Amino acid sequence: MKSQMIDVGNKRKTKRMARAQSIVKLNKEIIKRIKNDNMPKGNVLENARVAAILAAKKTSNLLPLCHNLELEYAGIDFKFTPDTIVVESLIKSTGKTGVEMEAMVSCSVAALTIYDMCKMFSKDIVIEKIILLEKRGGKSGGYVRKG
Amino acid sequence: MKSQMIDVGNKRKTKRMARAQSIVKLNKEIIKRIKNDNMPKGNVLENARVAAILAAKKTSNLLPLCHNLELEYAGIDFKFTPDTIVVESLIKSTGKTGVEMEAMVSCSVAALTIYDMCKMFSKDIVIEKIILLEKRGGKSGGYVRKG
Amino acid sequence: MKSQMIDVGNKRKTKRMARAQSIVKLNKEIIKRIKNDNMPKGNVLENARVAAILAAKKTSNLLPLCHNLELEYAGIDFKFTPDTIVVESLIKSTGKTGVEMEAMVSCSVAALTIYDMCKMFSKDIVIEKIILLEKRGGKSGGYVRKG
Amino acid sequence: MKSQMIDVGNKRKTKRMARAQSIVKLNKEIIKRIKNDNMPKGNVLENARVAAILAAKKTSNLLPLCHNLELEYAGIDFKFTPDTIVVESLIKSTGKTGVEMEAMVSCSVAALTIYDMCKMFSKDIVIEKIILLEKRGGKSGGYVRKG
Amino acid sequence: MKSQMIDVGNKRKTKRMARAQSIVKLNKEIIKRIKNDNMPKGNVLENARVAAILAAKKTSNLLPLCHNLELEYAGIDFKFTPDTIVVESLIKSTGKTGVEMEAMVSCSVAALTIYDMCKMFSKDIVIEKIILLEKRGGKSGGYVRKG
Amino acid sequence: MKSQMIDVGNKRKTKRMARAQSIVKLNKEIIKRIKNDNMPKGNVLENARVAAILAAKKTSNLLPLCHNLELEYAGIDFKFTPDTIVVESLIKSTGKTGVEMEAMVSCSVAALTIYDMCKMFSKDIVIEKIILLEKRGGKSGGYVRKG
Repeated sequence: MKSQMIDVGNKRKTKRMARAQSIVKLNKEIIKRIKNDNMPKGNVLENARVAAILAAKKTSNLLPLCHNLELEYAGIDFKFTPDTIVVESLIKSTGKTGVEMEAMVSCSVAALTIYDMCKMFSKDIVIEKIILLEKRGGKSGGYVRKG
Repeated sequence: MKSQMIDVGNKRKTKRMARAQSIVKLNKEIIKRIKNDNMPKGNVLENARVAAILAAKKTSNLLPLCHNLELEYAGIDFKFTPDTIVVESLIKSTGKTGVEMEAMVSCSVAALTIYDMCKMFSKDIVIEKIILLEKRGGKSGGYVRKG
Repeated sequence: MKSQMIDVGNKRKTKRMARAQSIVKLNKEIIKRIKNDNMPKGNVLENARVAAILAAKKTSNLLPLCHNLELEYAGIDFKFTPDTIVVESLIKSTGKTGVEMEAMVSCSVAALTIYDMCKMFSKDIVIEKIILLEKRGGKSGGYVRKG
Repeated sequence: MKSQMIDVGNKRKTKRMARAQSIVKLNKEIIKRIKNDNMPKGNVLENARVAAILAAKKTSNLLPLCHNLELEYAGIDFKFTPDTIVVESLIKSTGKTGVEMEAMVSCSVAALTIYDMCKMFSKDIVIEKIILLEKRGGKSGGYVRKG
Repeated sequence: MKSQMIDVGNKRKTKRMARAQSIVKLNKEIIKRIKNDNMPKGNVLENARVAAILAAKKTSNLLPLCHNLELEYAGIDFKFTPDTIVVESLIKSTGKTGVEMEAMVSCSVAALTIYDMCKMFSKDIVIEKIILLEKRGGKSGGYVRKG
Repeated sequence: MKSQMIDVGNKRKTKRMARAQSIVKLNKEIIKRIKNDNMPKGNVLENARVAAILAAKKTSNLLPLCHNLELEYAGIDFKFTPDTIVVESLIKSTGKTGVEMEAMVSCSVAALTIYDMCKMFSKDIVIEKIILLEKRGGKSGGYVRKG
C-alpha cells in the first residue's frame, strides 16, 4: 500500500482528548536526587514537562502520517513509586482527528528527557510501557485501557 | 540546580557510537498485515525507518539539554517475533559528546510511528522497553547492556 | 512593496485541493535499480513519499508568506516512463487559503529526495517541470492546467 | 504550580489582532548604511521582515505554553529616527487565544536580525522596549498601551 | 535495501562547494512587476533569497538520508531573461560529505518562493530544470555540468 | 547589496563565548508570585530557562544569515531587582564564527517566555534592553560592554 495521510476532509470537528502514560525505571538513589532537585543538568521534572509540551506541538513533524492540529490543552503529570517515575500526559483539541499520538509523543519525550538528565548516573535506566490510557471524541467513540 | 547544558568545551572529539532498542507489542493479525504490506496508511516499516532517521537529527531540538552534533551514520533495523517488532537503532558521530540520546530518540520515534500506523486496528498496542544496548567512545569508555 | 502575508481574515473556510507534478529525469540503469529496490541508501520511492508528506506540513515554514493550515490529506504517486519518474502530489484542506504551495513543495521535495538517493550514480539527473496541475476551492474557483 | 497550557477548549473562536513594537538603537553611520542598502550581509530591512514573519509562525515552537494557531495576517513595518529603527508588527488570526505572543516574537526577531546584520560595525547596539501596543478580540476585550 | 544514511565516519573533512540552478518560467508582465518591485506580497527576489538561505540550513531535516553539516557560506543569485528568472545557489562547507543537496534544496526553495509570490497573476508558471552545476571537494573529486 | 552568509571557510576554529542580557520589567506583585512559584501557567523561570536553551540551538533557523554551529554550553541565569528580572545567557562553542547571536536569541526568548507566562496579570510588561555583555574568541578578539 502506498503511504498517505488518511483523508479526514469529510469528518466533523469534535472535541477530542487523549491520555497516555510512560514509565521510567530508575534506581532509588537517582529518584532521591530528582526529588531533592540535586541533579547536575538541573530540575529533571521541569525539563521533562516543558520538553513534553513542546513535543506535543511537533507531533505531526515527527510522525509522517499524522495530521497537524491546533491543540487546546497539553499537560503532564508525574508520580513516583519507589523505583519509577510514571509520566501521564493529557492533550485536548477540537478537530477532525484524535490526539492520541500527541499524547503518546508527549509522554515519550518526557521519558527521554528524564533519561537524558539521569544517564550520567546509570545507563541501565529503562523506559517501560508507553501506552494510551484513554481517548474521547470522534466517530469511533471512546476508549479506556483496561487493567 | 539550574538547568544547563553540560560544558563539553574541554573534551576531545572522538569517535562515538550508540545502539538502542525499543519493542512494540502488537497482536498477530497486525503483524501479519505489516509483513504483507497491507496497511491502510502504507508501508509501516519504511515509514518508521524514515521517521526514526529524521528524528535522530532532531534530537537536540527535542531534548533541552542535549548537544547538537553532526551525525555520521544513522540506521534502523527491525526484527519480528510472533507478537512484537523489535526496533534497533545505530548512530555514529565524531564529537565531544555521545550519541546515546540520538539512538534512544530514534528507536522511540520508530515505535511511535508503528503505533500511529497500526492504531486503527488496536489501541492496546504497547511500546515496551526502550533501552540503551551499547555505547562506545568518549572518556567514560564503553557500555554494553547485560542480559 | 513591503513583504506581508495576504490578509485572509475575511475569507470563508472552504474545501480546497491542489495537485502538482514534478519530473525527475534519470538514466535507464538507475530506473532499473530503483524498480528493483537495489539502491545503497534504501527504497527510493518510500523515502521520497515520506519526505514529501512531511514537507507538505512544513510549507509555511519554508515559504515566508505562506499561511499555515491544517491539512486533511496528503498523498504522493509515482509513475515511471523509460527514463523519468513522474511525481504527483495531492493535498486537501478546509481553509481560508489554497493548498497549491503545499502541493508544489511536496512534489519538489519528493524529487529532491530521489536526486539525493541516486546522485552517487549520476550527477546529471535533472528535476524538470514542477507545475500545478489543478486546484479547487476558494473564491477564485478552479484551475486545471492545459496540455 | 505545574507547567501547562491554559485549556482554551471552551472558548469561542473570535477575530484577534495584536500589534507589538521593538526599538533597535544604532549609531547614525549604520542607519545611513542601512538606508543606502550598503551592508555586507545584504538588505537589512528585507531580511528582518522575512525573518520576523517566519518567526511569527514558529511562536508556539519557541514559547512552551503558547497555543499553535492558523495566522491570517502577519506584517512588519519599520520607521527610522535619527539613531533608531522602530519595528512594528501586526498579526491577525481567528482563534480561541490571542496573538500577542506572535506579535512580540515577531518584532523581537526583526530586531535580532537587524542586530545580526549590523554587529560587525558595532557591538554596542541595543534592542530596547519590546512592548505590546494593542490587542483586540477575545473575552478580555481590547487593550491599548498608554503613552 | 534498507534505508540508511551512508556511513561517513572514516572520511576526512575537506573543503566542499556546490553550485546549483533552477529556472522559473514566468510571463513578461510578471517579470516587469518583479523588476519594478511592484508585487502585492512584497519584494520577490529578497524573499526568495532569504527563504533559500534558510532552507539550505534545513536540508538534512527535509531529505531523510542527508547528513547535517555546518555551512560556511550560502549565497543566491538571480538573472533575468525576457521570460525567466534563473536562480543560482552557491554553498560551501568543510565536512565529510558534499553540499550538493544544500545547493539543490536552496535553489528549489527560491523558485518555490517566486512561484508563491507570483501565482496570483498566473498559475501557469513553471519551475523548469533544477540541476547541479558544479561540485568540488571530497574523494570523488570535482564535477562540472556540461553544456 | 545581496543577502548572503559571510564566507567563513578560511577562518580557523577557535574557542568562542558570548554573554548577553535582557531585562523584563514587571510589577512587584507579579515578581512576588514568580518567586513563590504561584503562577497559573507554571514555574516561570524553569520554563524561560528551558525555552532559552532550546532557542539558542535554533538561532540559525531564526536569523537568516547566521551560521549553524555545534554549541558546547548554554546556560541561563536570572536575578531579581524589586521590579525587574535580569536574564543573563552564556553560550560557548568552538567554531569559525562567534556565538553572540545565540546569546542574544537565548535571552530574548527567556524574556518572551516570562512575558507569555505573566501577561494575564499585566499587558504593560516591558522587555527592556537586550544587549551583548561580552564576547571572546575569533580574530576580532574580545569585547566587553562598558558601563
